[in-house]
Amino acid sequence: MGQHTVTSFDEDLEAIDRLIRAMGDLADAMVAASARSLVTSDTALAQRVVSDDAAMDAHQRELDDRAITLIAKRQPVAQDLRVVVGAIRMAADLERIGDLAKNIAKRVGAVGDGVAPRDPSHSIEAMAQAVIGQIDAAIARYEARDHEGLARLRDEDEKIDVQYTAVFRELLTYMMEDPRNITACTHLLFCAKNLERIGDHVTNIAENAYYVLTGRQLPLDRPKRDETAMAVAPE
Amino acid sequence: MGQHTVTSFDEDLEAIDRLIRAMGDLADAMVAASARSLVTSDTALAQRVVSDDAAMDAHQRELDDRAITLIAKRQPVAQDLRVVVGAIRMAADLERIGDLAKNIAKRVGAVGDGVAPRDPSHSIEAMAQAVIGQIDAAIARYEARDHEGLARLRDEDEKIDVQYTAVFRELLTYMMEDPRNITACTHLLFCAKNLERIGDHVTNIAENAYYVLTGRQLPLDRPKRDETAMAVAPE
Repeated sequence: MGQHTVTSFDEDLEAIDRLIRAMGDLADAMVAASARSLVTSDTALAQRVVSDDAAMDAHQRELDDRAITLIAKRQPVAQDLRVVVGAIRMAADLERIGDLAKNIAKRVGAVGDGVAPRDPSHSIEAMAQAVIGQIDAAIARYEARDHEGLARLRDEDEKIDVQYTAVFRELLTYMMEDPRNITACTHLLFCAKNLERIGDHVTNIAENAYYVLTGRQLPLDRPKRDETAMAVAPE
Repeated sequence: MGQHTVTSFDEDLEAIDRLIRAMGDLADAMVAASARSLVTSDTALAQRVVSDDAAMDAHQRELDDRAITLIAKRQPVAQDLRVVVGAIRMAADLERIGDLAKNIAKRVGAVGDGVAPRDPSHSIEAMAQAVIGQIDAAIARYEARDHEGLARLRDEDEKIDVQYTAVFRELLTYMMEDPRNITACTHLLFCAKNLERIGDHVTNIAENAYYVLTGRQLPLDRPKRDETAMAVAPE
């Protein structure tokens, strides 16, 4: 009977873990498609990202419902409870990543395919690749119960921040060169900022996963989030 | 004995509600100070917002710890469980609001007090006032158990989005007029965007509070988050 209860709990938990994996895969696909649609001005692809976001929201609601039902039904304690609460938090970050990818996709029309300089959107796609690698790594290391890998992942977010600062400066120079670039570059700035924020959410996921696995919080001090807040444009 | 248990649960819950109120008040103060520091180029005030964010993070951790301990110790079900999970989610949104206010404050130095046009920063302060009103209303209506008021609040977020679109267009015209405005206006654009996002978090808080009080989700369709994603600059 005890065995049966434990098995049911594990089964409930597996369903939740499968949802986390599905949300991680969807987040990857949405980030990749949003960056691609920006570079190729592919509004149909951008539209698909917008629809995917509805699926992401549905996944989150399902996960939340399952998690709350599980807490109510099984009344888990200690490590088991941590896993369930951790899953709720990770799902919230994945949902936000989907939101940010959707926001990038929604700017594809405004950036247009005429005036916008192509080079910065390629820099943005490179940033997107780095972000996708981080999402993948966060989910994979959580699944592998690799808490040391998760701790390292948080530090790697710094690289995304460095890329973002470079893109930010690059875009400012295009805007200064020719006022006709301003509208498109402004939208690209927001896209780059969204990718930088997706990096922050991956950091949150890594922190939560670490807490779930170890019961300990990672130390509070972490790499700075956004260096451009202090940046002034190159003259 | 049953009475005793109920009372203890209520006491635990009151402590959590007090933390939500403290976080709401701090969020208000941080948003107000960040907008003020932007208008007056007051770097000391901006620095205070940055320090306040550490207090906000500490509040969130305390709330999370209390909520998880409460779930583990009291094993609440149904409405009680909803209140606790809802508090965790509201605290996460309040913490994000603090983060966004901090991000505004960190841009005060970069905006500078020389080149930046003063008019748009006043438009931004007006936006901040509207946002502060919403934070206040969300917390007050939650405390008053006013679920109808919460449902209306979500719709009011549309007004913030309209203000944001106006500020966005205003800033683009300043950038086009004179390239020397570009750096400052770019930072102001991010500040305005952060206020718009704070409005989104208030919407989340209202949705969560509504769910806690009623057990029902508000319908999924809601006013659009950011009209400028599709906007092109005035010629």
